[in-house]
Amino acid sequence: MQEHIVKAYDSDLSTLKSDLSEMGGLAEEQLGKAIDALLRRDTKLAEAIVLKDEKLDQKQVSVEQQAVVTIAKRQPMAQDLRQIMVAIRIGTDIERIGDLAKNIAKRALAINDPIPTSLTKGLRRLGALSQSQLKQVLDAFAATDAEKAIKVWRNDEEIDAHYNSIFRELLTYMMEDPRMIGSSTHLLFAAKNIERIGDHCTNIAENIHYLVHGEMPKEQRPKRDKTSVTPFSSLNED
Amino acid sequence: MQEHIVKAYDSDLSTLKSDLSEMGGLAEEQLGKAIDALLRRDTKLAEAIVLKDEKLDQKQVSVEQQAVVTIAKRQPMAQDLRQIMVAIRIGTDIERIGDLAKNIAKRALAINDPIPTSLTKGLRRLGALSQSQLKQVLDAFAATDAEKAIKVWRNDEEIDAHYNSIFRELLTYMMEDPRMIGSSTHLLFAAKNIERIGDHCTNIAENIHYLVHGEMPKEQRPKRDKTSVTPFSSLNED
Repeated sequence: MQEHIVKAYDSDLSTLKSDLSEMGGLAEEQLGKAIDALLRRDTKLAEAIVLKDEKLDQKQVSVEQQAVVTIAKRQPMAQDLRQIMVAIRIGTDIERIGDLAKNIAKRALAINDPIPTSLTKGLRRLGALSQSQLKQVLDAFAATDAEKAIKVWRNDEEIDAHYNSIFRELLTYMMEDPRMIGSSTHLLFAAKNIERIGDHCTNIAENIHYLVHGEMPKEQRPKRDKTSVTPFSSLNED
Repeated sequence: MQEHIVKAYDSDLSTLKSDLSEMGGLAEEQLGKAIDALLRRDTKLAEAIVLKDEKLDQKQVSVEQQAVVTIAKRQPMAQDLRQIMVAIRIGTDIERIGDLAKNIAKRALAINDPIPTSLTKGLRRLGALSQSQLKQVLDAFAATDAEKAIKVWRNDEEIDAHYNSIFRELLTYMMEDPRMIGSSTHLLFAAKNIERIGDHCTNIAENIHYLVHGEMPKEQRPKRDKTSVTPFSSLNED
């Protein structure tokens, strides 16, 4: 590329990156509030979260448009195209994380019963894990740090294990007190949404690795033993 | 664009379109088989579906790469960029539909109990609705038919309503026979996955509308009354 085009391209890229970082910050905020709203069953907060998700959706569309226009205007080569593709993908993942936070807030609105203390603790821990994963992976993206990204990628196992134990606990509650089945089901979906946020963090981590090394991580991510799938174990969805 | 570039661009676009149509066909096949595997609890079929999803994932990555390379090489103007952006988005939605079909197949592997007949009927109907929506929207894309797409978009309400009734039925089963809670929970997630496939069909429909008219559909999609959310109603997630 000619020098002035290179400069314009770099400036486009840094705009994209700062927009993604703004999206990331908003998603972090939405997630933190959604977990609070769920555990305190704060309907006002939950409603505010549902409304605010729109902003993240709009931002994602604008990032996607900017990205595509940048490709068309600057005609980057293969190596540089990678950065734009990764920006599009990460934007999609952050937007999905926003959707999932919104879903958690909606569950908060649907639950009528108080949540048993041990379950509150478990959900708070699951929420904290997902918040930490999101923060780490956004930091890794800001620093283009593939090693840090891989750490996030490996840590997802912990979220899965924790989700699995909440799944079992919820099923036990339901069996012990069938009146709890309605609310427990919503908590089950809320926990699942938190677990899915972890999956999107690993997607982002994979894309940071791809950005730096030109390929997705090669090692297999540790997954729970598949042979243990029974009606009472949760399940790794895609 | 110069004439030879226009031709090359048209040829790139038609390759993209035929790749997406191939992906769509594969997703339809996976979905049909997944519903069969679930209802007949056919573990062999379920395992084959899980394995085959990889193909759809690879195809999506290749569509995305082609799309981005096409933009860089042909430098299309705003109007034409839209076609490529839509191709990228539809590829993502079809890939997700494949993931959801895979999830349904995994649920088939986790369920130990026979499924009560009335529930089998309900799930078969939900499955048929989602298959029909997927077929219609892929046809609409092949024909660039925005009116047909809007029909699909409006029909999603039927899937939501049907999912809601299955949700209630499953909760009733759980309350009547707590031993069914494990398997019922997996069926709940399977039904949710089918309902999500409907959502991805509406995403595709919106993108066809955008392709033709340059904007997303303006009317509000009919949604179930939000005030009816209780612990025993399902919930529209994003």
